[in-house]
Amino acid sequence: MPQNISYNLASILNLEKEFRRNLINCLSGFKSVCLCGSINKQGITNLSVISSVIHVGANPPLIGMLMRPHTVRRDTIENIDETKTYTLNHIHPEIIAQAHQSSAKYPQDISEFEAVNLSPQFTDTMTSPYVSEALIKIGLTLEEKITLKSNATILIVGKIREIILPENIIEADGFVNLEEAKTVTVSGLDSYHVTKRVSRLPYARTNSKKE
Amino acid sequence: MPQNISYNLASILNLEKEFRRNLINCLSGFKSVCLCGSINKQGITNLSVISSVIHVGANPPLIGMLMRPHTVRRDTIENIDETKTYTLNHIHPEIIAQAHQSSAKYPQDISEFEAVNLSPQFTDTMTSPYVSEALIKIGLTLEEKITLKSNATILIVGKIREIILPENIIEADGFVNLEEAKTVTVSGLDSYHVTKRVSRLPYARTNSKKE
Repeated sequence: MPQNISYNLASILNLEKEFRRNLINCLSGFKSVCLCGSINKQGITNLSVISSVIHVGANPPLIGMLMRPHTVRRDTIENIDETKTYTLNHIHPEIIAQAHQSSAKYPQDISEFEAVNLSPQFTDTMTSPYVSEALIKIGLTLEEKITLKSNATILIVGKIREIILPENIIEADGFVNLEEAKTVTVSGLDSYHVTKRVSRLPYARTNSKKE
Repeated sequence: MPQNISYNLASILNLEKEFRRNLINCLSGFKSVCLCGSINKQGITNLSVISSVIHVGANPPLIGMLMRPHTVRRDTIENIDETKTYTLNHIHPEIIAQAHQSSAKYPQDISEFEAVNLSPQFTDTMTSPYVSEALIKIGLTLEEKITLKSNATILIVGKIREIILPENIIEADGFVNLEEAKTVTVSGLDSYHVTKRVSRLPYARTNSKKE
């Protein structure tokens, strides 16, 4: 059995900044990671990596993402404020390097699509760009925006307006086989992983006959 | 190339309920999945599976989780309201079946710890129970609670008070090797996966010399 180590709040606050950032970012577990496509009123497209996507609800279909405080220029938030639309695009191994590179701080007048060599894709429904190379694409409109009192991060809740995905990964009950699509997951700030299914379990019930 | 299928909001809303629930729950990507331990004032412990954990911040160390609307009895939220404390415990393959079973609707006076045969563990810092069998354990206190206007789901933000984990999975820069600890990730409502790292990438920079 490996030795355990424990930290309390005081010892966490005393950690070297970079060490703490890596440690705490890992603790929330494996994370969804998507490319967020947006566009400003001048038509300049933007791409950013988002690792804080959460399921909010199925009816109406809602997805959330948590953004860092808006204290410096944040093109994604500013574009969503301007146009009320954005896209989320799953990342697969062939585009990890380009996706990760899109998190570099490019000047506002440079589109990350061009900078990292990914192709914007527009549909009749969405004025915000999808990532053409992605296999699973979700178009959203801004539904709600909440600034957390705790640390000024911003929860963006979007309503799903369009979904585009390969037909063969949708199973009979609606389950989407993300593993088949090689959707990656991220741990910490920078570690990308594919997955291997352990099990899919039936809806849990107690033994009680009342249920 | 497999054929694509697309849905718009109208066609999503017209889907059969179960199909839509599975489809939309998968779209947010691979999710963190943790066992949340809590306790009420009468000392009855509670365990629930949470698949909506997100990183909120490293300094102060904050973790969020989104809970379904509080329209029926929800022991976890009620316990957190009462005691202001809870724990998050990573799930590994050996405890997936027990973890998943804890999502069954047990009566309020039955502890899921007993029902699924997992052991509560208390420390000097935490009055809420950890899952003894878990390898990565996080103790939190309630920091903020936000009800989303969009669909009445509840974002619980907790401040990390204690972390317990195997020393050998922490790397020199603070990165926690979740894959080594066999922390699982979930897709949709019920599919559990282990991971295989594709790459860990350096901090992304532009070519600009100004940076």
